[in-house]
Amino acid sequence: MFRLPVSKMVSRLSVVASRIMGPDDANIVGNVHGGTILKMIEEAGCIIGTRHCNTQTGDRCVAALARVERTDFLYPMFIGEVAHVSAEITYTSKHSVEVQVNVLSENILTGAKKVTNKATLWYVPLSLRNVDKIIEVPPIEYTSTELEEMGKKRYEAQKLERMETKERNGEVITPVSLPEPYTVGFSQSSLIHLIGPSDCTLHGFVHGGVTMKLMDEVAGIVAARHCKTNIVTASVDAINFHRKIKKGCVITISGRMTFTSNKSMEIEVFVDADPLVEAEKGKYRAVTAFFTYISLDKENKPLPVPPLKLEGEDEQKRFEEGKARYLQNKAKRLADKEQKQ
Amino acid sequence: MFRLPVSKMVSRLSVVASRIMGPDDANIVGNVHGGTILKMIEEAGCIIGTRHCNTQTGDRCVAALARVERTDFLYPMFIGEVAHVSAEITYTSKHSVEVQVNVLSENILTGAKKVTNKATLWYVPLSLRNVDKIIEVPPIEYTSTELEEMGKKRYEAQKLERMETKERNGEVITPVSLPEPYTVGFSQSSLIHLIGPSDCTLHGFVHGGVTMKLMDEVAGIVAARHCKTNIVTASVDAINFHRKIKKGCVITISGRMTFTSNKSMEIEVFVDADPLVEAEKGKYRAVTAFFTYISLDKENKPLPVPPLKLEGEDEQKRFEEGKARYLQNKAKRLADKEQKQ
Amino acid sequence: MFRLPVSKMVSRLSVVASRIMGPDDANIVGNVHGGTILKMIEEAGCIIGTRHCNTQTGDRCVAALARVERTDFLYPMFIGEVAHVSAEITYTSKHSVEVQVNVLSENILTGAKKVTNKATLWYVPLSLRNVDKIIEVPPIEYTSTELEEMGKKRYEAQKLERMETKERNGEVITPVSLPEPYTVGFSQSSLIHLIGPSDCTLHGFVHGGVTMKLMDEVAGIVAARHCKTNIVTASVDAINFHRKIKKGCVITISGRMTFTSNKSMEIEVFVDADPLVEAEKGKYRAVTAFFTYISLDKENKPLPVPPLKLEGEDEQKRFEEGKARYLQNKAKRLADKEQKQ
Repeated sequence: MFRLPVSKMVSRLSVVASRIMGPDDANIVGNVHGGTILKMIEEAGCIIGTRHCNTQTGDRCVAALARVERTDFLYPMFIGEVAHVSAEITYTSKHSVEVQVNVLSENILTGAKKVTNKATLWYVPLSLRNVDKIIEVPPIEYTSTELEEMGKKRYEAQKLERMETKERNGEVITPVSLPEPYTVGFSQSSLIHLIGPSDCTLHGFVHGGVTMKLMDEVAGIVAARHCKTNIVTASVDAINFHRKIKKGCVITISGRMTFTSNKSMEIEVFVDADPLVEAEKGKYRAVTAFFTYISLDKENKPLPVPPLKLEGEDEQKRFEEGKARYLQNKAKRLADKEQKQ
Repeated sequence: MFRLPVSKMVSRLSVVASRIMGPDDANIVGNVHGGTILKMIEEAGCIIGTRHCNTQTGDRCVAALARVERTDFLYPMFIGEVAHVSAEITYTSKHSVEVQVNVLSENILTGAKKVTNKATLWYVPLSLRNVDKIIEVPPIEYTSTELEEMGKKRYEAQKLERMETKERNGEVITPVSLPEPYTVGFSQSSLIHLIGPSDCTLHGFVHGGVTMKLMDEVAGIVAARHCKTNIVTASVDAINFHRKIKKGCVITISGRMTFTSNKSMEIEVFVDADPLVEAEKGKYRAVTAFFTYISLDKENKPLPVPPLKLEGEDEQKRFEEGKARYLQNKAKRLADKEQKQ
Repeated sequence: MFRLPVSKMVSRLSVVASRIMGPDDANIVGNVHGGTILKMIEEAGCIIGTRHCNTQTGDRCVAALARVERTDFLYPMFIGEVAHVSAEITYTSKHSVEVQVNVLSENILTGAKKVTNKATLWYVPLSLRNVDKIIEVPPIEYTSTELEEMGKKRYEAQKLERMETKERNGEVITPVSLPEPYTVGFSQSSLIHLIGPSDCTLHGFVHGGVTMKLMDEVAGIVAARHCKTNIVTASVDAINFHRKIKKGCVITISGRMTFTSNKSMEIEVFVDADPLVEAEKGKYRAVTAFFTYISLDKENKPLPVPPLKLEGEDEQKRFEEGKARYLQNKAKRLADKEQKQ
């Protein structure tokens, strides 16, 4: 009676997930949070990565998120739309898996469909027996040597970048007393979250997607405080997950604005883990990332953003760095556009 | 770079959704709740049904579930497995859509896969403009006349059964003599909640905050039943947590109104724990508390509250005690105010 | 009383958390539930208490909530506002910690801020190794002896009150004559649920899947109460959804056991909707269904089920009807099996 064959439902190298966006997935004007989408993307990546790395004999393992490449949110998604997430393995190194994920929004009332996101994630398989052991990844087959070589280039490039960011992680956000509007201190925000069982993998470590969702929540509060309008995630810079976060930890997620252009805001987000019960281990910086937000009017058109008021040399320096990232991304987008034409 | 074509991701007549089963989806020994699976099945059915019924001009609509055929759970599913749900439209009548759904469990560590459920659901498209209007369903094409005729038979069979059950639905479970409005019995309410992993601390005992949230929920329903308006929590009396509540317990939270002043209602709330599996321990009273609610109009101004109708000495006694607490708090508030001036 | 300066935000003795209030945190007119705020308060208290009690060598522990002092809700909070919860340790006795919590609402669009709650919570550190062991609390330092003495007074006052309430807790809300094990009355259960935005379709009516999940939850509790073992859903009879259920309704879901075979239990589930605010519409029966459950041992093999003790003609009649359904389904399964061979 039922004709969709099992083999088609579960292909080894791809995963598809569909879900209706509900009120909890969105802000009060109905725009789906970038964090909701990042969480869905990561879940699909974790399924396909874990499945692939267990297609060999030896230790059972779970794929842990190691890095997400820069991700652009091309169009806003709305409550009532269906998000379709599809993931595919596109490269494997000895110890890591590259997953490419596509997100499509579908308005099931009008039939309109849009590709809203494309993301690239890197996973590392950790043994279930010994969570500090990285196991070997079974190689995939490429349809052409060209594809394989392009994958290798992406792998080398991200490896280099991961090394660099490891250093930057030291900095701490210091609170300010009664800040003036439009300053960094004014919109600065933080939240704490106690890691519960439903945030975790089978290992008892936090899903990367859960962390990213909370990071986007803080970044969104910072952006809304700054410009007092409806704001949406426009992009997320590459995020590296250097250290695992365990069940029972409290994580503090802090965000501060680093840069504003005419129509965008860059927010730096820090995730600090505090192993409450094993206090001797001490707090540590687990993740950092840059989120870019834009402000939208009622017709979902971008609004001008009030410029950030800088105080002191540190803020000035971070602003210049943010500007450099902004100009670099702009240049890259233009180059990509020209290449396509 | 990304090669999965959009057309493959969103076929008009089928939907696939995949999700990892987490601790909240299962009971304490790790078996996924049947209800979790039924909810995923229905979500896939609603997506595909709504999509199909909007593939024509005219009113936009949402597919509302009208009937689910008998469903067997062939194998248990476990935490950590991936549930793949695929849905397909298999028959359309003038005003209804038949959706067939398959659920497959996949252990991504071992690669083992099992069909755990097959379900058949009937949806009816309701207009978004006028929710009482059922719109016409666009017909699907069948690959053979045999398939169409088999579908028609299923349609006729379920139509007959639906008629029959409509009558049986009249019966009420406990034929209570309906209590009079504004009495204690009229608004009295209770709910049960099965303590899941995300309700608990690292010890496996319920967070006090989870209990308080449920207590407020019951108190709010009691208050709303009494005065049929928008109500909000005004205060909570001191709460003592004498006994811990363990994961896997069922808790019963009951509330009854004890006192009304001109503009407030006092509700007593009881929490009773029932350690289902360790039955020898027996039920016990874990917490009690008094919540005070007020009723608000559209401008958030307090409204008068209908007085509580008392029946019997016990209710009279509790009312007097509530009044004493009310007067004591009022006196304390006044004293605090004067001290500040 | 509450003195937390902003500069102390990441100190060992204080915790600050911020969260945007979403639709599920509030009622249908947008007022945030008191219970949502109580839950946030307690989470902050648990974090700071647990952190403090682990700043010494010896047993690791979790701070368990022992008491909440009377709490007033000074102003309503609304969807879209940010709730800032800050917690500080203000007193420690040998075995308990006093935490003071402040809740501030911020309208991030207008910048308006209001203190909406102040709460005082008492925690007791329980050892992770032996949950019945209360460990000693490391003392805090006070900025003045006056502060310490005031804390001691609060400690003594609450200790006295806790003793008193311990006795009062004996009372039971409806002094039912306890039904005998294995009777219908013994396992009969019901729960109430307030329909929130994320339970609903775009129309504002409940998703069938949400209703079915709650029905399965009640049926599962009935089954577990009857046989006190691990139980799983084996099948669900056809369910007809005759009447829609609207956002803002309270639904009562009740379940009673109707039939037991050697290895299965049949539970009848009723869903009654009560449109709280539109009271003139009255309660109505929305859905009914039969769920079949089986009991499993540790190897997931079916266990024998204790037979249902019947009382009265009605229960006898329902048992016979259940038996007829059971035999009919068994015959159907056999017929299907033969057809396949």
